[in-house]
Amino acid sequence: MVPVSLGCAMQSPWQLVSGGVTSPQGFQASGIAAGLKPSGKLDMALLLAPEQAVCAGSFTTSVVRAACVDLCAERLAANGGQARAVLINSGQANACTGDRGLIDSQRATQALADQLGLDAEALLICSTGVIGVPIPMPKLLAGLDPLVAALSATGGEAAATAILTTDLVSKQVALEAELGGRRVRIGGIAKGSGMIHPDMATMLGFFSCDAGLDPSIWKAMVGQAVQRSFNAITVDGDTSTNDTVLAFAAGDPLDSVHHAALEQGLTEAMQHLAKAIARDGEGATCLIEVQVEGALDEPSAQRVARTIVGSSLVKTAVHGRDPNWGRIVAAAGRSGVPFDPEQVALWIGPHQLMQSGQPLSFDPEAASRVLRSETVQIRIQLGDGPGNGLAWGCDLSDQYVRINADYTT
Amino acid sequence: MVPVSLGCAMQSPWQLVSGGVTSPQGFQASGIAAGLKPSGKLDMALLLAPEQAVCAGSFTTSVVRAACVDLCAERLAANGGQARAVLINSGQANACTGDRGLIDSQRATQALADQLGLDAEALLICSTGVIGVPIPMPKLLAGLDPLVAALSATGGEAAATAILTTDLVSKQVALEAELGGRRVRIGGIAKGSGMIHPDMATMLGFFSCDAGLDPSIWKAMVGQAVQRSFNAITVDGDTSTNDTVLAFAAGDPLDSVHHAALEQGLTEAMQHLAKAIARDGEGATCLIEVQVEGALDEPSAQRVARTIVGSSLVKTAVHGRDPNWGRIVAAAGRSGVPFDPEQVALWIGPHQLMQSGQPLSFDPEAASRVLRSETVQIRIQLGDGPGNGLAWGCDLSDQYVRINADYTT
Repeated sequence: MVPVSLGCAMQSPWQLVSGGVTSPQGFQASGIAAGLKPSGKLDMALLLAPEQAVCAGSFTTSVVRAACVDLCAERLAANGGQARAVLINSGQANACTGDRGLIDSQRATQALADQLGLDAEALLICSTGVIGVPIPMPKLLAGLDPLVAALSATGGEAAATAILTTDLVSKQVALEAELGGRRVRIGGIAKGSGMIHPDMATMLGFFSCDAGLDPSIWKAMVGQAVQRSFNAITVDGDTSTNDTVLAFAAGDPLDSVHHAALEQGLTEAMQHLAKAIARDGEGATCLIEVQVEGALDEPSAQRVARTIVGSSLVKTAVHGRDPNWGRIVAAAGRSGVPFDPEQVALWIGPHQLMQSGQPLSFDPEAASRVLRSETVQIRIQLGDGPGNGLAWGCDLSDQYVRINADYTT
Repeated sequence: MVPVSLGCAMQSPWQLVSGGVTSPQGFQASGIAAGLKPSGKLDMALLLAPEQAVCAGSFTTSVVRAACVDLCAERLAANGGQARAVLINSGQANACTGDRGLIDSQRATQALADQLGLDAEALLICSTGVIGVPIPMPKLLAGLDPLVAALSATGGEAAATAILTTDLVSKQVALEAELGGRRVRIGGIAKGSGMIHPDMATMLGFFSCDAGLDPSIWKAMVGQAVQRSFNAITVDGDTSTNDTVLAFAAGDPLDSVHHAALEQGLTEAMQHLAKAIARDGEGATCLIEVQVEGALDEPSAQRVARTIVGSSLVKTAVHGRDPNWGRIVAAAGRSGVPFDPEQVALWIGPHQLMQSGQPLSFDPEAASRVLRSETVQIRIQLGDGPGNGLAWGCDLSDQYVRINADYTT
C-alpha cells in the first residue's frame, strides 16, 4: 500500500483493520435520519472527539464556498487548532444561500453545543447536498436530540452512511500500528463521487487518531497527507463549494520519533478513501493510477500526474481499452511542467510503450488487456530528477455523459 | 461580429467577403494530393506571400512539440519577423520522431527553396497528422513540383482543403474594409476539430493581409488577436504537439491611424475560424459562447470564461439542455480568479438565472429552449471591474466518448 511517492522504502507498519472513524480509542459517532433527505435515508451525522482533541482541516479552494466552510476555518484558527466535534448534514449544501447560510450554521452548532454541554466555538459543521437550497432548520434542530443519544464507539458505520449523497457505496477505513510498543489507530469516513448530480458531489472526509499531538505538528501532517490523497484525485476537474477534510487527534502523546510513521499512516488512510471516491460513481468502470517519476520535485510530478489523469482524451482511451501513448504524452506536455521530451519513458501496466521520447513496438492486444483491469496503472518517467508523484481518477464513459446530460436541475 | 471583449463600441468597418487566404492582393496558394494520406485526398498545401512580407507566429505551449514548430519559431526570430512562404503537409505530424524530424523539415524547405528560387531560411513548414510517424519524404519531395506549379491567386480553397485531417468541413474566411480610402483585405484558412482522432487534431491557422506593417507592430497585433481567438477556444483541453498560427502581411504601408482597425479585423478573422474549429467535430451539437464581464482585467475574465467552457459538467449540462447554474458558478469559482460570489449575476441567453450570488426563479422550459440553439450564450457578471472576456467551446456528447473510446491507435 506504500506508494513510491512517499519516498520511503521501509515497510509500512500499518495494517488495515475493520471499522472506521470510531476505531481509534475514545471517539464516538452516530448517524440518524432527520428527514432532510426526501428519500428518508440517514442524513445527519456526528463525530465526537475526546477532550483536548486537536483538529486540522483542509478546505475547498473555490472562491464560491459555503458558509459552513468559513465557519470551520475561522473556528479552527481562533481555537489554535482545537475542536471537539463535527456535525454533518446531507441533503442541502447550504451554499449560495446568502446571509442565511452562516446564521443557520451558527444556530445548528449552538443548539448542538447546548445538547453536549460544550462551547459552540469548539464545534464544527459540514453540509453537503443541493446548492442554493437552505437547510430545513426545524428538522435539523429536532434531529439533534436523537443524534446525540445515538453516539457510541460503534457509531462510525452509521455516520459513514449518513454523510452520503449520490455515492454508490459508503467509504470507511481503519488502520492500526504498533508504535513504541503501543497500539495506535487511525480511522476515517468519506463521501464523494463527483460523477452524478455533481452539484451534490461535495467531497468530505473525517479522520480520527488516538495519539496526542501538538496542533501545529498535526496540522502539517494533515496538510501533507491531504496533498498526497484527496488533492491527487480528479474525477471531472470540478471542485465543489463545500469540499472539506477534518482530522481529529486525541490520546496519550506520541514520541516524535514516531511522527513520520504516523504521517505515513494518515497518508495511507486518506489515499484509501481518496481512491474509493475516484472509483465510485455511475459510469466509471475502473480506477486509473498515474505514477510520475524523475521530475524535478514532487509538486511537478503531481501536477503532471493530475493533468494526465484529468485528460478527457486519456480517460476515454482507457475506457476504450486503447493503449494510446500519444494522448498520455500530449497531456504531460501541456501540464505546464518543463521536461525534456527526449527522455520520456512510458509504461501501461508492465508494458513499456515509449523510451527516450519515441514509441516502441509493443503488443497492442496485451496492453489492451491491461486496460481491462480493475485498476489501470500508467507510469511515466520524465527524466532523472528526484520528484515522484501519484494521482488517481477514473475512466470517462458514455454513461457519464448520459447521466450528467439527463440530470435536470 | 464585434464581441464586447474588444472593448470598442464602434461599428466594425470589416465586411465578410467570399474567399480565403488568397483574397488579399498578391498572395498565392495551392493544394495537391501527393500520396501522404492513404485516402488519396489533398495533403500538401503552399502559401506564398509577396516580397518583403512580414510574418508573425504563435505556437503550441506544450513542451512536447514537433521539430517543424521549432524550425518556424527559430527562422522567424532569426529573420526579424520576415518570411515568404509556408509549406503544410497533412497525414503525419512528424512529432516524437527524434532527430529525423528536424532533418526532414529542413530538407523539405530546402527543396522548396530550390523550386521557388528563394532562400530556405525564408520558408516555414507545418505538419499535421499522426504523432510518432515520420513524413514519407520521397512522396513529399515529388509533390513540390506540382505544388509550386499549381500556385495561383485562387488557390486558397485548395490549400484550405489540403491542410485538413479529421475536420468535417474546411474553414476559410476573408474580410474587407476601406481604411483611409483604400481597400484592405484579410484572409485565412484553418484546420482543427480536436474531437476525433485527437492525435491528428493539431490546430493550424494561416492568415494573409495586403497592408504593409513593421514586423514588431504586426507581431503585437497577431499576438493579441490569437489571444482573443485561438487561445479562447477549448474543445477538450488537450493541446497538440504541432499547434501553429502564422500570419503574413505585405503591401503598401498602412498609416498608423488605422492600426487599431486592422487589429480588429485580424481579431474578427481569427475568431471566425476559431469558432468554426470549436463547432467542428463529431459529437458536438452546438457552439457554446461564454462571456464574462466585470472582472478585474481581461486576462482574469478570459480565464474564467475558459474554465466555464472547458468544464465537463457544464458541457454535458448544455448537451442535456439543462440550465444548471450551479455547475457554471462552481466552474467560475475554481478558475483561480478571485471575485466576490455575492456579486455574481448569470444569464443563459436572455434568461437571468442568478443575481447577487443567489438563484432567481426562472422558467426552466424557456431556458432549456435557449440551450437548443445552434449557439448557446452564457453570460456571467463577476463584479463591476473593467475586464471582459470571451471563450468558445462545444457541448460534450456521448458521441464524443464513443468515438474517442472506440478509436484504436
